[in-house]
Amino acid sequence: MQFVDEFKAGRLWGMLTSIDLFDCNPQKIRSEKEIKKYVIELCKLIDMKRYGETFTVRFGEEERVKGYSMMQLIETSNISGHFAERTNSAYIDIFSCKYYDPVKAEQFSKKFFGAKRIESYFTVRRMPWAKEQKRMEMPNPRDWFFETLEFDRGVSLSVKGKQIYSKKSPFQNIEVYKTKAFGKMLVLDGAIQLTEKDEFAYQEMLAHPALFTHPKPERVLVIGGGDGGILREIAKHSDVKEIDLCEIDEGVVLASKKFLPFTAIGFKDKRVNVFYEDGFKFLKGRKNHYDVIIVDSTDPVGPGKTLFSSNFFNLIFDSLKESGIMVNQSEGIFFRMKFIAETAKKMKKIFPHYWYYYTMVPTYPSGTIGFGFASKKYSPFKVKNKKINGKLKYYNKKIHNAAFVLPEFAEKML
Amino acid sequence: MQFVDEFKAGRLWGMLTSIDLFDCNPQKIRSEKEIKKYVIELCKLIDMKRYGETFTVRFGEEERVKGYSMMQLIETSNISGHFAERTNSAYIDIFSCKYYDPVKAEQFSKKFFGAKRIESYFTVRRMPWAKEQKRMEMPNPRDWFFETLEFDRGVSLSVKGKQIYSKKSPFQNIEVYKTKAFGKMLVLDGAIQLTEKDEFAYQEMLAHPALFTHPKPERVLVIGGGDGGILREIAKHSDVKEIDLCEIDEGVVLASKKFLPFTAIGFKDKRVNVFYEDGFKFLKGRKNHYDVIIVDSTDPVGPGKTLFSSNFFNLIFDSLKESGIMVNQSEGIFFRMKFIAETAKKMKKIFPHYWYYYTMVPTYPSGTIGFGFASKKYSPFKVKNKKINGKLKYYNKKIHNAAFVLPEFAEKML
Repeated sequence: MQFVDEFKAGRLWGMLTSIDLFDCNPQKIRSEKEIKKYVIELCKLIDMKRYGETFTVRFGEEERVKGYSMMQLIETSNISGHFAERTNSAYIDIFSCKYYDPVKAEQFSKKFFGAKRIESYFTVRRMPWAKEQKRMEMPNPRDWFFETLEFDRGVSLSVKGKQIYSKKSPFQNIEVYKTKAFGKMLVLDGAIQLTEKDEFAYQEMLAHPALFTHPKPERVLVIGGGDGGILREIAKHSDVKEIDLCEIDEGVVLASKKFLPFTAIGFKDKRVNVFYEDGFKFLKGRKNHYDVIIVDSTDPVGPGKTLFSSNFFNLIFDSLKESGIMVNQSEGIFFRMKFIAETAKKMKKIFPHYWYYYTMVPTYPSGTIGFGFASKKYSPFKVKNKKINGKLKYYNKKIHNAAFVLPEFAEKML
Repeated sequence: MQFVDEFKAGRLWGMLTSIDLFDCNPQKIRSEKEIKKYVIELCKLIDMKRYGETFTVRFGEEERVKGYSMMQLIETSNISGHFAERTNSAYIDIFSCKYYDPVKAEQFSKKFFGAKRIESYFTVRRMPWAKEQKRMEMPNPRDWFFETLEFDRGVSLSVKGKQIYSKKSPFQNIEVYKTKAFGKMLVLDGAIQLTEKDEFAYQEMLAHPALFTHPKPERVLVIGGGDGGILREIAKHSDVKEIDLCEIDEGVVLASKKFLPFTAIGFKDKRVNVFYEDGFKFLKGRKNHYDVIIVDSTDPVGPGKTLFSSNFFNLIFDSLKESGIMVNQSEGIFFRMKFIAETAKKMKKIFPHYWYYYTMVPTYPSGTIGFGFASKKYSPFKVKNKKINGKLKYYNKKIHNAAFVLPEFAEKML
């Protein structure tokens, strides 16, 4: 345990473990006697010398927090607890300038109060001269957004910023942040969707490869993409006559129009028609209609999940004209290679041609994200020379070709 | 303030602000009267109803923590404080299930005790049903490593893992972690250098482009690279006769040999000679000697800083034979484009040919890192057909060429 060394080296003043216990045994948290017993046993277990008696008091100003509060001074600081009877939860803090094993304390507390679920937070209190202990620094949860999508995997990207919008739509949680490094940021169900500073790398590389490959992409459909960024890129092509957007969640469009004008500008183009519908239902009514279909979906969880199924790819195939091209968001090679290979297999069964290509987006997990390119006729390696309206920051003819070149380990799996 | 809404929505049970004050006014923290006054004023300021008197007691079991402790029950939980006299610091916790402004509380506390420096941590205590509030989740600092190198910029990558080694060498802090997602991880001065899972993407792309470009790279020098990974890649080339490594910090080599056998295996090749020297001094003694020089440096801070200077590039130029090639670690395009352009300018003044190329490494800031390719004669676009010993996971002939193709915004700046 590294903190022992920190104490020995004189860099730590103390440590605070905050333990939240949920679904406790109702009898235990309602009993003054049990609470006092808990304190005595805990102090024995983690070797803390009690100073004076355990102080308990019943609170009840608010129904929400009604129940016992406990405080115990110990020779090396204090232990406090609050027992919320309405919800059968307990909130305990163990602050000591003497080292103890927080895991032991957590486990004992959970067991004693018969809690079904525990959450705990750990704070180290440093000595003034411990400044240089860089690895002790951590983002302050008040100022930072944590991408929790890769938590299970053990990777997290944090971005400094304040939440400026939050709404639960019938489909997902929609949040907007104002960040220090990346400007405005759109978050759906806890996953970063785009940021002002690096969205161009995603939007340009999802939209342009198909549009520069197809010699005459007159009718284009976007599925998803409620932020408008893909519309913005398509609108730069003057050979496009009709741009349909099928987005299941109007909430994303409303939030984008209010907070993300840099992508929502895409909705202003006169060729754009917006449909708030389920992609499956929408496609069934449009056979043999589109030259290019762009699937700008979230990750394959929540509302985005079905957009990676064979059923969906079949519908896309039928909605495309005989020389049609489909591109879709297809995850990154470092974290999801197995999923990419599985999805590729499904697409290859339906489309005569399939390729995977990718772009770099710093705020996506691993910094890389890829796309599927499925085609009925055209190969992406014959890029057409077309003039477009508006400037590009990522895409160019050379990058178009380079994006299809994969590192050896990824190439082998596709 | 987003927490007000959280309280209103009934998702929060309470909030805990832990305030550490350093360099306090010595009189104030030694006065029971002042401490009691502080509690009364603080409670007024943040609108908390005190419950009973402020309890104070002098502790002194250990010299390190000697001083007053204070506890105050409030109607909505408690406030506690510990005043460490030897270091003139104070550690205060404000826990309340009623909302208050933590910034106000922090500022008042700092001012009251005349502290010169403040650090504070914030913990939200949630209701059992607040589970879905994903953005409240945060990495537990006991289990996660935080890359603090991009903190100022407002970006942080966290990796779940335990520290298994830590040593301060004369040059830098050397740490090794065992991580959940990436296996073993080497950290120098708080910056992730390599992880077991993705180091191949860096090592292969730094080593092979130069070695496959040079028709006969007999003498190769590595500057830096104490982990051995670059040596491992060079050793795969049978046309190489002599591999010198100049590493300033023996500590890195020792730690790698002990914990990172997958890279340290590079030291076992018989052609390898290791010199623990400063790169500048080493180069001065070796004029017109090497075919390829690979600079595997840390970021341009700490010991890596001088390795991006014109003086250093001049020495490299002189140490290379007339057809020599130099490659060096040159940062990523998303976060350091300005620095890359400045470094490129320096290198172009000295070498007749210069190109920038890149690779993808999930654990580096932005997920991308690039290299400078400076050459006296050979162009990197004529890759030689060579057989090597050992397999490659990232590099292949196509990726070699694609790696030199830059997104539009980066190309424009070089």
